[in-house]
Amino acid sequence: MTFAGYAVILSNLGSSSDRFVPTGYGDRYTIEQLFERAAQIPQVGAVELVGTWHVTEGNVRQLKDCLDRTGLKLASIIPDHFGQPKWKKGSFASKEASIRAEAISHTKEMADVAVELGCDLLSLWPGQDGYDYLFQSDYVQERQWFVEGIREASQHRSDVRYSLEYKIKEPRTHGLLSTAANALLIAQQAGGDNVGVTIDFGHSLNAYETPAEAAALLQQYGGKLFHVHMNDNYRHWDDDMIVGSVHTIETLEFFYWLRRLGYQGWLSIDQYPYREDGLAAVREGVLAMEAFNRLLDSIPSGELEGIIARGEATESTVYLRNLLLRPIT
Amino acid sequence: MTFAGYAVILSNLGSSSDRFVPTGYGDRYTIEQLFERAAQIPQVGAVELVGTWHVTEGNVRQLKDCLDRTGLKLASIIPDHFGQPKWKKGSFASKEASIRAEAISHTKEMADVAVELGCDLLSLWPGQDGYDYLFQSDYVQERQWFVEGIREASQHRSDVRYSLEYKIKEPRTHGLLSTAANALLIAQQAGGDNVGVTIDFGHSLNAYETPAEAAALLQQYGGKLFHVHMNDNYRHWDDDMIVGSVHTIETLEFFYWLRRLGYQGWLSIDQYPYREDGLAAVREGVLAMEAFNRLLDSIPSGELEGIIARGEATESTVYLRNLLLRPIT
Amino acid sequence: MTFAGYAVILSNLGSSSDRFVPTGYGDRYTIEQLFERAAQIPQVGAVELVGTWHVTEGNVRQLKDCLDRTGLKLASIIPDHFGQPKWKKGSFASKEASIRAEAISHTKEMADVAVELGCDLLSLWPGQDGYDYLFQSDYVQERQWFVEGIREASQHRSDVRYSLEYKIKEPRTHGLLSTAANALLIAQQAGGDNVGVTIDFGHSLNAYETPAEAAALLQQYGGKLFHVHMNDNYRHWDDDMIVGSVHTIETLEFFYWLRRLGYQGWLSIDQYPYREDGLAAVREGVLAMEAFNRLLDSIPSGELEGIIARGEATESTVYLRNLLLRPIT
Amino acid sequence: MTFAGYAVILSNLGSSSDRFVPTGYGDRYTIEQLFERAAQIPQVGAVELVGTWHVTEGNVRQLKDCLDRTGLKLASIIPDHFGQPKWKKGSFASKEASIRAEAISHTKEMADVAVELGCDLLSLWPGQDGYDYLFQSDYVQERQWFVEGIREASQHRSDVRYSLEYKIKEPRTHGLLSTAANALLIAQQAGGDNVGVTIDFGHSLNAYETPAEAAALLQQYGGKLFHVHMNDNYRHWDDDMIVGSVHTIETLEFFYWLRRLGYQGWLSIDQYPYREDGLAAVREGVLAMEAFNRLLDSIPSGELEGIIARGEATESTVYLRNLLLRPIT
Repeated sequence: MTFAGYAVILSNLGSSSDRFVPTGYGDRYTIEQLFERAAQIPQVGAVELVGTWHVTEGNVRQLKDCLDRTGLKLASIIPDHFGQPKWKKGSFASKEASIRAEAISHTKEMADVAVELGCDLLSLWPGQDGYDYLFQSDYVQERQWFVEGIREASQHRSDVRYSLEYKIKEPRTHGLLSTAANALLIAQQAGGDNVGVTIDFGHSLNAYETPAEAAALLQQYGGKLFHVHMNDNYRHWDDDMIVGSVHTIETLEFFYWLRRLGYQGWLSIDQYPYREDGLAAVREGVLAMEAFNRLLDSIPSGELEGIIARGEATESTVYLRNLLLRPIT
Repeated sequence: MTFAGYAVILSNLGSSSDRFVPTGYGDRYTIEQLFERAAQIPQVGAVELVGTWHVTEGNVRQLKDCLDRTGLKLASIIPDHFGQPKWKKGSFASKEASIRAEAISHTKEMADVAVELGCDLLSLWPGQDGYDYLFQSDYVQERQWFVEGIREASQHRSDVRYSLEYKIKEPRTHGLLSTAANALLIAQQAGGDNVGVTIDFGHSLNAYETPAEAAALLQQYGGKLFHVHMNDNYRHWDDDMIVGSVHTIETLEFFYWLRRLGYQGWLSIDQYPYREDGLAAVREGVLAMEAFNRLLDSIPSGELEGIIARGEATESTVYLRNLLLRPIT
Repeated sequence: MTFAGYAVILSNLGSSSDRFVPTGYGDRYTIEQLFERAAQIPQVGAVELVGTWHVTEGNVRQLKDCLDRTGLKLASIIPDHFGQPKWKKGSFASKEASIRAEAISHTKEMADVAVELGCDLLSLWPGQDGYDYLFQSDYVQERQWFVEGIREASQHRSDVRYSLEYKIKEPRTHGLLSTAANALLIAQQAGGDNVGVTIDFGHSLNAYETPAEAAALLQQYGGKLFHVHMNDNYRHWDDDMIVGSVHTIETLEFFYWLRRLGYQGWLSIDQYPYREDGLAAVREGVLAMEAFNRLLDSIPSGELEGIIARGEATESTVYLRNLLLRPIT
Repeated sequence: MTFAGYAVILSNLGSSSDRFVPTGYGDRYTIEQLFERAAQIPQVGAVELVGTWHVTEGNVRQLKDCLDRTGLKLASIIPDHFGQPKWKKGSFASKEASIRAEAISHTKEMADVAVELGCDLLSLWPGQDGYDYLFQSDYVQERQWFVEGIREASQHRSDVRYSLEYKIKEPRTHGLLSTAANALLIAQQAGGDNVGVTIDFGHSLNAYETPAEAAALLQQYGGKLFHVHMNDNYRHWDDDMIVGSVHTIETLEFFYWLRRLGYQGWLSIDQYPYREDGLAAVREGVLAMEAFNRLLDSIPSGELEGIIARGEATESTVYLRNLLLRPIT
């Protein structure tokens, strides 16, 4: 396995809120405490931080201390293009020029902070770009603004990679950066070699993609898979459940293809443990990722390649049954 | 038209939050201000209040004043079975007996308050009952607890009607009270004549129901449609958009059947105007309801009845085209 | 395990067609050949036959010979309420009285044939009842006709059980008999003890049900789960894929609950192997069912019960990971 | 309006079959009769023909006569990459080289026929390319074959435009050519200026696209919207219903943007009137398209532009209510 290792978005270790319980379902933790919780999972090598939530103008020193103390690396910073009311009608594609400018300048700042903290990756999730209602978006103009914004932001530093995380819906009913193919088009237009795409496993399922196919698409067009977020759901919504809790075979296939495609980035947890202890949920998510990888390690070379090459469902289903449904001895 | 009139859930007039902006997208208003905003829409005759959010042990006097001052009626109270961390693993069907008892006692209190405020309807939305994960719910036991809880709560006052609002998902990935047919089964088991069902138009679409058919089902089994919440969405999620903004024909058909079925309750707004001014969104929701009703008023008696009786798609589509797509003159 | 055994719908062993290749993707087989193919799978103990497709007025003798020769039992007959143009606007709920009468009389005939062939189960799939367009169905009237038709048909023989197979869509955009809860309501209204419900695993997923919960619902209301059809899909459509090919955990949970709920009927394959050899696909479907059952047999008693009783996702996911993702040794 | 005019796929005027009634729900018509039926709708200016179903090696003369006699133009030929068992595991992306070669050679033949019949457009729908099962497709290799096949086929004639019709599912559970963005990527890779994309309105809804946004995307990347198929559905499946029967506002927005984007091709009916008379259903589909266009014609210039530019849902919903819900006077 050549992955960079396992990571986690820091907030996953704390309390989650939804629109009915906005103050959160669980206990709240300080940033220091969240770092300490991450450090309790030996397999976790890095964290991702979110702009505003975790990274502010004044706390870079504090974050550096947290990283040093725990020995964790910084896998990425996710700039805040979604977490404040000012972004409510978009960031890079907002109809207001001043908001678009803020989206760009905040991204630049986060890139500088990332480098300062030893990290070369921003994972951008412009979740507020898009629209809710019909006859609400100037699809042509807003897409153009979006591309221009990503272009300008990504040209700020050539030593940072900018990875676009797509999502078909939520918080807008229709996200601008909707699918892997759509994100790839934008990455191609916006940037040079330092613009790529983040696959969130659950977002991919929501778009009726097969995550393994999405990964193949991105890698095929010039190695554009920059980052991976892991979780699970029931296909219809971004439920952000524990890795492997629903889609055993899709997850297995995704990890298989990540290896075959030479993906070398992080496998990072992006769960929302509304009703679970965040630490326990992240630990299990990481152990699940490890288990999928170990299971793949134990499969003799060539077997899955042959099955895929022949493409007979009556062969692959036999194989997967024997792999997954062995009685306990 | 024999509806009780138009109503609105009070919180719809204020700020909405989601999991990314838990502090809310818009300005916050006091309860008094929310009442005043409701009163600015002449068509609105009543409000619905939510337990904990609007109704507490200590503020019944204040609520009475608000109702008196604005001349609004109380359409229903929605007890709080969803808005605090204590409900996170369910209310009536919680695995913890003490939580189940709280769900019942809170419902009884809200029934008493409702009567005190001149209202005979509770709309129960036990949105936290259900499950997220597989192998998490004892489907038999928890359903039984649920039925028993509803039964005990509803026997508290025979002068109050208890209306069960179903929803197939959110906040749990799977709601226990999922569909109109499921809610009807529970209403039958749990109660006497004072237990019925609330249709939320958007929840019905999410369950791949046709809302008009759901209304017919409930009325057919003994007049069990007690209450209606109106909004719209794109079928996949409870987007809680402005009435009529997506589903023109479904909404028209729903209102047609409400009239035909003799529904006499409120038509109440249940929108989440994340990015809109709450007052403007509610006003338009109400004006849309009025417009659907006026359009139906203008259709000569017997025309839609004939179309439905014959059931020819090539006739109904002609009719609807002529009805909805008339050029502006 | 107390199931009656494994079965298969006879046509699954042959060629499947869709609307683009109506003449079928594979080789065609005579009824005799289909029986012989079924008999090649030692675990298969019974077949289901479809009215018109397999059972006609004139071929009962031939069918009896086939059963005798192969030693297979008849698990059920599925009357033809869907496979001829005359049913195109419904069967039991058709707007035409003569069609409704035919639906009933054909059901009676099939019940007589079933008994003649040693079988006491009809699985009714009135897939053409429902509607495609809005303003097309008189929801009240048509539901009433439907209930009356099922009632009359099921009173024909008290020694036959009539099991209603629900499906939320296809071939109509909206099926009348849509969900488990809806089917249960109709079974309650229509019949005595000899009317129950068939769960098709894939239909249940299409309705955003959890199949295990649907089984629990039906059993809880008086042992109303009469029959089970097995297959798999991607939740959005009745893809009729090989058992276990997508939903490992849902299938495991379903089989677990079938046992816990004391289901004693058949586990019958209902796949559409468009591009696979029907025999190979059925064989693998049956072996998959056997593997799920064997895996459950190997789990120490009380373990899954405890997990469900506690309902902690961070416990169940650990357990399922250890169960399903063991490296090959 | 600058559209080429209204067209129809010839088979829409006849009988439709599905997997339950493979012989078809309605009366069958000869090709001549289908042409005559098309000619009965004055607004229809052209037909689309399907390879194998309508166009064979031997009947070009006959087709020319039909076109001449009726005065209809040929809008496009849709080569047969989906309608015979040989395509069951793909056409351009089949694992078998000989099948891939046949897909290409058939396309070339159809291009020659098209030109002979006075038409410069092929609408390719390689609906069998994709996969059903996980671990079945070599996503990288098969996509490459697909691109190469389209490239070779489209280089056959520079006087023909090749338009790729995408569809996310059916007949495969996952189509290779899945979304507008994905089709655009392939068009870019495969071809010169003569490769573009067909939007089928219903396919776009199935992919959770907003059709107007899909049109904008394609036009924005170099005028790549070559062709449009019209119908409607309930978002979850390609129900192929009559135009405008479900999505009033989406259809209005789509037509609005087609005009704004300068689309100059055909608006062609692609419905499957399983239970309706094909002629009546096509007529209504065409009249609906005409009605949407007339409604747009009647809106004063600048009004919708302003609404979109401001993007306020509380403004657009007011406008649409006043437009669509005017009482009959």
